[in-house]
Amino acid sequence: MKIITSRDNAQYKDLKHLATSSQARRKAGRTLLDGVHLCETWLQLRGHPEQCIVSEGAMQNGEVAAIVARLEGEHAHVLCFPDALYAALSQVEHGVGIMFLVETPQRATPAALSVNAVLLDNVQDPGNVGSILRSAAAAGIGEVYCSPGTAFCWSPKVLRAAMGAHFVLDIFENVDLAPLLADAPIATLATSGYARQRLYDVDLKRPVAWVFGHEGQGVSDELLGLARHQVVIPHLGEVESLNVAACAAVCFFEQVRQNLD
Amino acid sequence: MKIITSRDNAQYKDLKHLATSSQARRKAGRTLLDGVHLCETWLQLRGHPEQCIVSEGAMQNGEVAAIVARLEGEHAHVLCFPDALYAALSQVEHGVGIMFLVETPQRATPAALSVNAVLLDNVQDPGNVGSILRSAAAAGIGEVYCSPGTAFCWSPKVLRAAMGAHFVLDIFENVDLAPLLADAPIATLATSGYARQRLYDVDLKRPVAWVFGHEGQGVSDELLGLARHQVVIPHLGEVESLNVAACAAVCFFEQVRQNLD
Repeated sequence: MKIITSRDNAQYKDLKHLATSSQARRKAGRTLLDGVHLCETWLQLRGHPEQCIVSEGAMQNGEVAAIVARLEGEHAHVLCFPDALYAALSQVEHGVGIMFLVETPQRATPAALSVNAVLLDNVQDPGNVGSILRSAAAAGIGEVYCSPGTAFCWSPKVLRAAMGAHFVLDIFENVDLAPLLADAPIATLATSGYARQRLYDVDLKRPVAWVFGHEGQGVSDELLGLARHQVVIPHLGEVESLNVAACAAVCFFEQVRQNLD
Repeated sequence: MKIITSRDNAQYKDLKHLATSSQARRKAGRTLLDGVHLCETWLQLRGHPEQCIVSEGAMQNGEVAAIVARLEGEHAHVLCFPDALYAALSQVEHGVGIMFLVETPQRATPAALSVNAVLLDNVQDPGNVGSILRSAAAAGIGEVYCSPGTAFCWSPKVLRAAMGAHFVLDIFENVDLAPLLADAPIATLATSGYARQRLYDVDLKRPVAWVFGHEGQGVSDELLGLARHQVVIPHLGEVESLNVAACAAVCFFEQVRQNLD
């Protein structure tokens, strides 16, 4: 374990730049995973980080100490900072004092949809995007495609809300969703309050690409028109609509239910 | 419309105290509804506010102007503040410049559960609580009972996330959930990752009280033990669990689906 105590240390300055600038992280193709749960999940599913970063105080935490001991046993890079220096790195409230620096997983966007997928059209709120990724992963959906206006998936807030779902999904960002939908060889479904076909009346025992849209405006008219099915989730109450992440969960688990039958 | 331009005005000072202190709002039994959507929904479902508060700048907004014109036509109280004074009242980012001051709806907690209900045990995040209220209202659920540790429902963040669901629900806060569950004359269901009975195998064509718990720890062991059914939402993926609001949406709309059959 390397202990760094100076704010002027070049490695510290590089990390601080990455930690405080989403642009710097994108340019470097790196992201930071904050907290025990994300780090453990990464270790389990993806292996070592490029660097493990801990605060001195966090070494008193049994879970943090166990991760560090494992990494050191496997000769991985661990950097330890005094709490005051570490605090300037963490972008998460009430963090426990451990982060992994990892390469942001990036893959070329497939030419066509082929497996269960989610398409996010301009979904703005990081908590919603994270919740959708988490529900998708739990429902066994493999791919997520995000339009340029959708919240950046590898940001600290989305990572935190998704609880490790990122590491079992193939996530494609800045994707032009229209041609993907237009040429889709699998069923494509968009939800709309104005649709007539009920979610429950669609056969979901086949690969499906789901389209969800902006929190206020919903899925754009262009994409709605390109989706093979426009479906409504029947409401019983006086309230007009669902939160987009709640809507996505209902859709994904209706598919799970149909496939369990 | 009364125009107030001085920071020393007593009405302004009272409002600022209410707007910036959740304790003051609780003590006064008042809450503030921020934004066009919440105000319009209140007008539609509950009638006039005690006061309508607008910023001078917002009077350029057609929706705000329409609400103010209606209220003035009906001799309701409208206060207008210069933008700088108004800004200190609004607790919402990017607000549009209109708020209603209303009496916080309060009713005595019923002695027993009798209709579709949601019990929230220590759900911490205001966004989750708001999303659950919104889904509950959309699914036709009528009552919400919150434990003392659950986020305060009438806070600005919960109000914003619930999009007016509050106004069609009976919400009971600071409720001791254990006796309600122990004595329930209707079916009670708690979700748990360790349960064996699947959500989809329970008969939901009858009144149900749903129990959801803390984001990290889930429903407490005491309440889990008191619920008649412990159910699991079957997962297909490698990810262990759902966000609590996503989980609630899946449950509520499984009930809707069964009742549509």
